[in-house]
Amino acid sequence: MSGRIVSREDPVQSERHSEAGSVAPPSKVGVPPRKNAWEEFKSVVNETFFSDQPLRHFKDQPKRKKVALFVQGLFPVFQWGRGYNFSKFKGDLIAGLTIASLCIPQDIGYAKLANLPAENGLYSSFVPPLVYAVMGSSRDIAIGPVAVVSLLLGTLLSQVYDPVKEAEEYKRLAFTATFFAGVTQLALGFLRLGFLIDFLSHAAIVGFMGGAAVTIALQQLKGLLGIKNFTKKTDIISVMRSVWSNVQHGWNWQTILIGVSFLVFLLATKYIGKKHKKLFWIPAIAPLTSVILSTFFVYITRADKDGVQIVKHIDKGINPPSLDKIFFHGDNLTKGFKIGVVAGLIALTEAVAIARTFADLKDYEINGNKEMMALGTMNIAGSMTSCYVATGSFSRSAVNYMAGCSTPMSNIVMACVVLLTLELITPLFKYTPNAILASIIICAVIGLIDIDAVILLWKIDKFDFIACMGAFFGVVFDSVEIGLLIAVSLSLFKILLQVTRPRIALLGKLPKIAIFRNILQYPGAKRIDGILMVRVDSSIYFSNANYVKERILRWLADETEKLKDQSLPIKVVVIDMSPVNDIDTSGIHAIEGLYSHLQKKEIELALANPGPVIMEKLLAANFDKLIGEDNIFLSVNEAIKTYAPNAALDP
Amino acid sequence: MSGRIVSREDPVQSERHSEAGSVAPPSKVGVPPRKNAWEEFKSVVNETFFSDQPLRHFKDQPKRKKVALFVQGLFPVFQWGRGYNFSKFKGDLIAGLTIASLCIPQDIGYAKLANLPAENGLYSSFVPPLVYAVMGSSRDIAIGPVAVVSLLLGTLLSQVYDPVKEAEEYKRLAFTATFFAGVTQLALGFLRLGFLIDFLSHAAIVGFMGGAAVTIALQQLKGLLGIKNFTKKTDIISVMRSVWSNVQHGWNWQTILIGVSFLVFLLATKYIGKKHKKLFWIPAIAPLTSVILSTFFVYITRADKDGVQIVKHIDKGINPPSLDKIFFHGDNLTKGFKIGVVAGLIALTEAVAIARTFADLKDYEINGNKEMMALGTMNIAGSMTSCYVATGSFSRSAVNYMAGCSTPMSNIVMACVVLLTLELITPLFKYTPNAILASIIICAVIGLIDIDAVILLWKIDKFDFIACMGAFFGVVFDSVEIGLLIAVSLSLFKILLQVTRPRIALLGKLPKIAIFRNILQYPGAKRIDGILMVRVDSSIYFSNANYVKERILRWLADETEKLKDQSLPIKVVVIDMSPVNDIDTSGIHAIEGLYSHLQKKEIELALANPGPVIMEKLLAANFDKLIGEDNIFLSVNEAIKTYAPNAALDP
Repeated sequence: MSGRIVSREDPVQSERHSEAGSVAPPSKVGVPPRKNAWEEFKSVVNETFFSDQPLRHFKDQPKRKKVALFVQGLFPVFQWGRGYNFSKFKGDLIAGLTIASLCIPQDIGYAKLANLPAENGLYSSFVPPLVYAVMGSSRDIAIGPVAVVSLLLGTLLSQVYDPVKEAEEYKRLAFTATFFAGVTQLALGFLRLGFLIDFLSHAAIVGFMGGAAVTIALQQLKGLLGIKNFTKKTDIISVMRSVWSNVQHGWNWQTILIGVSFLVFLLATKYIGKKHKKLFWIPAIAPLTSVILSTFFVYITRADKDGVQIVKHIDKGINPPSLDKIFFHGDNLTKGFKIGVVAGLIALTEAVAIARTFADLKDYEINGNKEMMALGTMNIAGSMTSCYVATGSFSRSAVNYMAGCSTPMSNIVMACVVLLTLELITPLFKYTPNAILASIIICAVIGLIDIDAVILLWKIDKFDFIACMGAFFGVVFDSVEIGLLIAVSLSLFKILLQVTRPRIALLGKLPKIAIFRNILQYPGAKRIDGILMVRVDSSIYFSNANYVKERILRWLADETEKLKDQSLPIKVVVIDMSPVNDIDTSGIHAIEGLYSHLQKKEIELALANPGPVIMEKLLAANFDKLIGEDNIFLSVNEAIKTYAPNAALDP
Repeated sequence: MSGRIVSREDPVQSERHSEAGSVAPPSKVGVPPRKNAWEEFKSVVNETFFSDQPLRHFKDQPKRKKVALFVQGLFPVFQWGRGYNFSKFKGDLIAGLTIASLCIPQDIGYAKLANLPAENGLYSSFVPPLVYAVMGSSRDIAIGPVAVVSLLLGTLLSQVYDPVKEAEEYKRLAFTATFFAGVTQLALGFLRLGFLIDFLSHAAIVGFMGGAAVTIALQQLKGLLGIKNFTKKTDIISVMRSVWSNVQHGWNWQTILIGVSFLVFLLATKYIGKKHKKLFWIPAIAPLTSVILSTFFVYITRADKDGVQIVKHIDKGINPPSLDKIFFHGDNLTKGFKIGVVAGLIALTEAVAIARTFADLKDYEINGNKEMMALGTMNIAGSMTSCYVATGSFSRSAVNYMAGCSTPMSNIVMACVVLLTLELITPLFKYTPNAILASIIICAVIGLIDIDAVILLWKIDKFDFIACMGAFFGVVFDSVEIGLLIAVSLSLFKILLQVTRPRIALLGKLPKIAIFRNILQYPGAKRIDGILMVRVDSSIYFSNANYVKERILRWLADETEKLKDQSLPIKVVVIDMSPVNDIDTSGIHAIEGLYSHLQKKEIELALANPGPVIMEKLLAANFDKLIGEDNIFLSVNEAIKTYAPNAALDP
């Protein structure tokens, strides 16, 4: 309200106006063609939900073509499938075999993280990849169960049912959660709300992933040390306590021997792979190799008799249907739904991040929303075929990329290998020691701890660093949910802080050119006597409007303070509006408030280079009438030309 | 991660770099002096919490002066008190008397809104104003109970206790809520979190206030029509239903006669006051006049015998202590706390808005945080002296201003009048008909419905308009809480939307000058062949980083599409970074991703005029090395000079 009242009641205004009229008219600021409410609304909706113009290919195409395009859009397989040839297949075959050898042991281990039977892990590497292969648009992502989601699912589910005593209900809830994870992903994609996942900041994700990795690694101490009664909690304190409390008779030296030796082996191969990019396949096949070796070793030595825990049993055969197992009503529906939404979002974030990474590398486009629909469909299908939440795996996707995959076909190859595994060799895993799975998982999740990224965060943005650490410690010292909560809230808080406290720069003129820059950045930039030039580096919204106003007034006060012994006081305040790309009613009120303050002090207010939206809104609010059209300039330089001609020339 | 990987693995990069090196070196972009982590952190904290530099007066002052300044800061009365003189007092006296005559009837009515005895309303116009007068920094605000807060309090409290059957507990909870409202306000001020209230957008407030006004007016139909059994609900549907259901024998014609006739009288005076600013005192004293007249009328005609409801009884004497009544433990503590926080925040928003409005009008400074401490202290004091939440009243403050108050002294005068009223004439209110209070309230709250503001919202910002309407209908059709909830969430949603979808402008060169502007705004602006110039009109954060990247790539695609039949394709993308005032790690990754995309297409990427923060962070991320320092330009024009020399000269 304030501003309005002012503009009405200010007596000085009218005469000021005419006075302003007397100065030389500067070149005009452009005003865009006025849009009506509907057009405006439409453009906003378009930018928000259809910024990628999903239908632009369809424009002026024959009907048949449109249908074809639609089908292709929904099933990219028809795009890459047509140009598919043998040379491409060779790449995909090798890549597929490599990631298969990597995923089989990982799947068994990750299933344990989710407190599910080993076979469910393998199932999840069979159906989902096939579905994704026909619907997904990323060429490099490797689909399957991943460590973090497995851990998250395991933690959340076991809060409802005991994975051992109530195994059946637990499993059913897992499928329910998987189903709703899929639904969530599909819905986000279909409703084009994909941008929502952008609200989880990169920094927060780095911290969360790192924390999850540490937690997972700690969980593996159970298998690695062969501890029998291990804590259910995941925070570092209780894990460490239960590790020490078991130190006397809980540990099993044979287990430790096997586990640690193979862990060393795996880490060594990983190191080699890092050093020589060409040898990426060594760390890729190392896990399967060590599974085979250790299994054979246990089998001949019957070390399991000496307390070396083994997998014991994996169901043979492919995914049994599980649609009937999903809870579609009652209390469990809501529980499963909640868990599903969380797991689904995390899975989504991970998958999309991977897809984008490799799309950047190979320069092809990822359609975020389509991608989500693909992931959603694949998880819904999975939930009906005894799979749990699957998504893109960082480690396997990297291997897939390096092994030279060229299409999602590599996922199909992998799925086939998993199929064979399920049909033929699962019984052989009977003697596989849990220790080996533990060391494989440890070796896999280490990759999730991205020290370089953290260092970079510290260097680039301290707040990002704090967010990262917050998420990290939240996960490590409490639980994944808390870590996630911290991550999300810090991300949102940053946005809010960002918009409340925009930067406002004091400008000076660069010598010899008509360019005005932040004097803090350019020491060469000189103030101009009697003129205060400021630049507001952000949109002016209700959340920062008052801050902007008060900050400018503060500067004015400081300057007057400095100049009070000098001859000419400040007569004009020029606000460079170039960076201000939007303003709302509160913002306009704030500027009107500022204006009336300056009026009382008999100081001119001039705006330089307001953008299209700003101009539109200033006109709508008759602000141009208020300060006088001639006080709105095309650029700061124009304003200076008017108010300090000789300074503008600068001799 | 993406970006980093790119920058490492891109083979093309190195040669590109040297190539970029071969072009003429443009004038350098300034880099501000590197700050260390601590300084950086300090500056952020300062801008966030101490942007007003509260201690700047204290700098290099003698110790005694500092103490004096501190006391003055805490009790502005010592500032304005010293220069106080008779002429000022005259203004304050008249203003004080006017607002007193206005507040007495309003207080009695508002107390009813809060389901509290009439005297509590008067109490709240005695103690709080006195406290504010010594601590507050606004010279025009008139302190006391207000309609909206009373309604809010009434609604929330009556969800816990029945105001009639459990009158005592209800009252105690009211004091508890008032206490915590005060604590909340004090805390916000003391912790310098004042900026938090800026998150409730102006638009949302307008809507909320309007809705509350309508709801309150509807509530008054009870008194105005003399309906006995009236609904407890506040939404328009149930109110209207209970009005019609009572139409046969529920209504009382004498009541209606008194009520309506005086309502007409009041509205008439209000209209006169609006037309002739000088006659503002007529609507100001009209309420008290009509109270006296109607009371006298009822007294002689004994209309109360004919079912005209009257006030019946108001306690005589000043505020009894109520500290012992406040719930300091148990379930009621938390309930009172919750209600207090909400009421406190709303009261704060209203008071601060008023303070700012009149500060702008008279050009003096309001210290938001100090203001909050004053309001908080006054409500805490109030809660211990049988007052309920008091704050600044729009209507009375306006009258106060127009009556020519010059200091908070007018509040003291008002308080004294209220004191006398409490001590001497409360018994006389016995025969005051409720109908008159109803019409006074209706007449008062009408002012809260700000049609002009709503029209302006529609004209300036459609989303603001939606937020406003959302809050309005939320209050009218459901309840104040729901309305408030809608208001807050819409406000936050707007911020989020704002940061996810920043504007990105396509630039063209204005004829004859080296100025580059949005081609949508300046039809005169011309593209330059082979160069795509875009300006990102916002900070680049995780929430919009990907959008920015993809939007630019989309534009590139569109342009290439357009140009594909022409001779020269786009060879350079120039991003004008002037408006980008901050960037985070995700932002840098996005730009790196963009860069590698362009690399694949063999297109140059050039940045123009990155701000200080951006430069710092780009350097920290070694981005300058990546794209080549020579591809970071001082301005778009410099970039054009380098890549299209003849275009820059424009013949």
